[in-house]
Amino acid sequence: MRWGAIEVGGTKVVCLVGFDPDHIVVQSRIPTGKPAETLAQMLAFFQQEVASGGPLDAIGIASFGPLELRRSHPRYGFITSSPKPGWSDVDMVGPVRRALGVPVGFDTDVNGAALGEGRWGAARGLDTFVYLTVGTGIGAGAVVEGRVIHGLGHPEMGHLSVPRQPGDDFAGDCPFHADCLEGMASGAAIAARWGRPAEQLDGNELQAAVALEAAYLAAGLRNIVYPIAPQRIVIGGSVTGLPGLFPLVRANLAEALAGYPGLPEHSADDFIVPAALGPLAGPAGALVLADHASQPNLEGF
Amino acid sequence: MRWGAIEVGGTKVVCLVGFDPDHIVVQSRIPTGKPAETLAQMLAFFQQEVASGGPLDAIGIASFGPLELRRSHPRYGFITSSPKPGWSDVDMVGPVRRALGVPVGFDTDVNGAALGEGRWGAARGLDTFVYLTVGTGIGAGAVVEGRVIHGLGHPEMGHLSVPRQPGDDFAGDCPFHADCLEGMASGAAIAARWGRPAEQLDGNELQAAVALEAAYLAAGLRNIVYPIAPQRIVIGGSVTGLPGLFPLVRANLAEALAGYPGLPEHSADDFIVPAALGPLAGPAGALVLADHASQPNLEGF
Repeated sequence: MRWGAIEVGGTKVVCLVGFDPDHIVVQSRIPTGKPAETLAQMLAFFQQEVASGGPLDAIGIASFGPLELRRSHPRYGFITSSPKPGWSDVDMVGPVRRALGVPVGFDTDVNGAALGEGRWGAARGLDTFVYLTVGTGIGAGAVVEGRVIHGLGHPEMGHLSVPRQPGDDFAGDCPFHADCLEGMASGAAIAARWGRPAEQLDGNELQAAVALEAAYLAAGLRNIVYPIAPQRIVIGGSVTGLPGLFPLVRANLAEALAGYPGLPEHSADDFIVPAALGPLAGPAGALVLADHASQPNLEGF
Repeated sequence: MRWGAIEVGGTKVVCLVGFDPDHIVVQSRIPTGKPAETLAQMLAFFQQEVASGGPLDAIGIASFGPLELRRSHPRYGFITSSPKPGWSDVDMVGPVRRALGVPVGFDTDVNGAALGEGRWGAARGLDTFVYLTVGTGIGAGAVVEGRVIHGLGHPEMGHLSVPRQPGDDFAGDCPFHADCLEGMASGAAIAARWGRPAEQLDGNELQAAVALEAAYLAAGLRNIVYPIAPQRIVIGGSVTGLPGLFPLVRANLAEALAGYPGLPEHSADDFIVPAALGPLAGPAGALVLADHASQPNLEGF
């Protein structure tokens, strides 16, 4: 099989042709400009690849959201109400399908990354798990019994409520909820709280920032563990580069669960783990979406 | 088909034979005593029904938990660590299967109720929804893309964190987390907070209790909506009898979501709804579990 994969991010679009993360034939990065121009560049890339390398079997698109994912909805395949200027109400699936004439898979970037980590990364062999990204914002994709959660829209786990840590007077920077998980623990929140981005913190300030970040992430993870009962939570994104973050998150989560329901798995080192695919998680997810699109009755991933 | 259904509750066990909630052939209530005696009475009921009415095709058990639901686990089919004296480490599935010689389905009471509401009740036609019960305790079952969430154990949504309401100094009565959703909003929490059960409150006190209950439930629902993206949340249990609770919960939830992700469905009256099956939700769920056990490759419910 020969698949096309598109990861649509806020600053760049990654397009590639391949079969899995170890077999990528060709890859291109396009700056995320105005929708029409960006789409035209995406289509030109794949049209040239088809002309030179032969037809594709399917294309997968993993995109920033929110997205319309209900197949019965007239705007299925659209980015709906993005805070990114010009990118609200943009049809992503239609132009790709019309230009390339192949089945097109479509899902959020984080659902895609969850699928990628499930097939090739840190969640291999599991059927119920969560991929959480902690970067400029916080988002998550979840797989339950082998299927991505869709429901009404898609999960929005960055907006879970978290209890304020004692002594913390940072208001939070989520425009909707102020002090939700994203408002307190995203990369943007860290930069707003400390006056500079996480990468520029050092000494006692860095230590305090890591401790606070671990506490808020663990508080958020509690509110993921109880509703979804995941077998594992994989965390990616730039903020996971903070030194010593993972052991602290695990310790804080044990405290937040307070022994309930008392499963030893929740305290094991392989319950909360770093993402394995790094920047390839998104494109890898788009490859899985292409695979799913070409086999609509496929079970699992 | 002729199915057996068992709902194992903390005070009583309901056993019945039937096909759906409208076609129940015979029903029996057994007080939940010591496990061995209670199991013996359950088995005697079904053995007598088989002798007099003919064989059963399968039996479903919907039980209080926590339960071991991983089929590969040596203790699959057990109640694991129940706070109910004597009921920890009790094999439920084994004795029923050995005595009756039929396939046995097994799940939590709330997962069962979710399945029952999905097939015959307030969640008919949906594939991703949550059934929340608010009684002495708070628990929930969830169906995602047609499948009950299992993962590692099962969801424990009563233990979600909820922000403390302004001016509320009740410590909360969850033995693990004190002020989690269950600790603040269960029937037991209401009784502890006001000094008497919800049914005995009146006047201003009743009004204040309903307002507080709606605020905490809505705070919990926010932390269900964001991770699971349900198409609907069905709420059952004795506390839902509080006058005027549902409209207040809906209004509080809209406030808690604060316009994000901005889906009109979240504000519709059919998003948060009362359970339709009442006390039959549990036994109805056990009927679905029996159906699933007799068709192990069945999709959906």
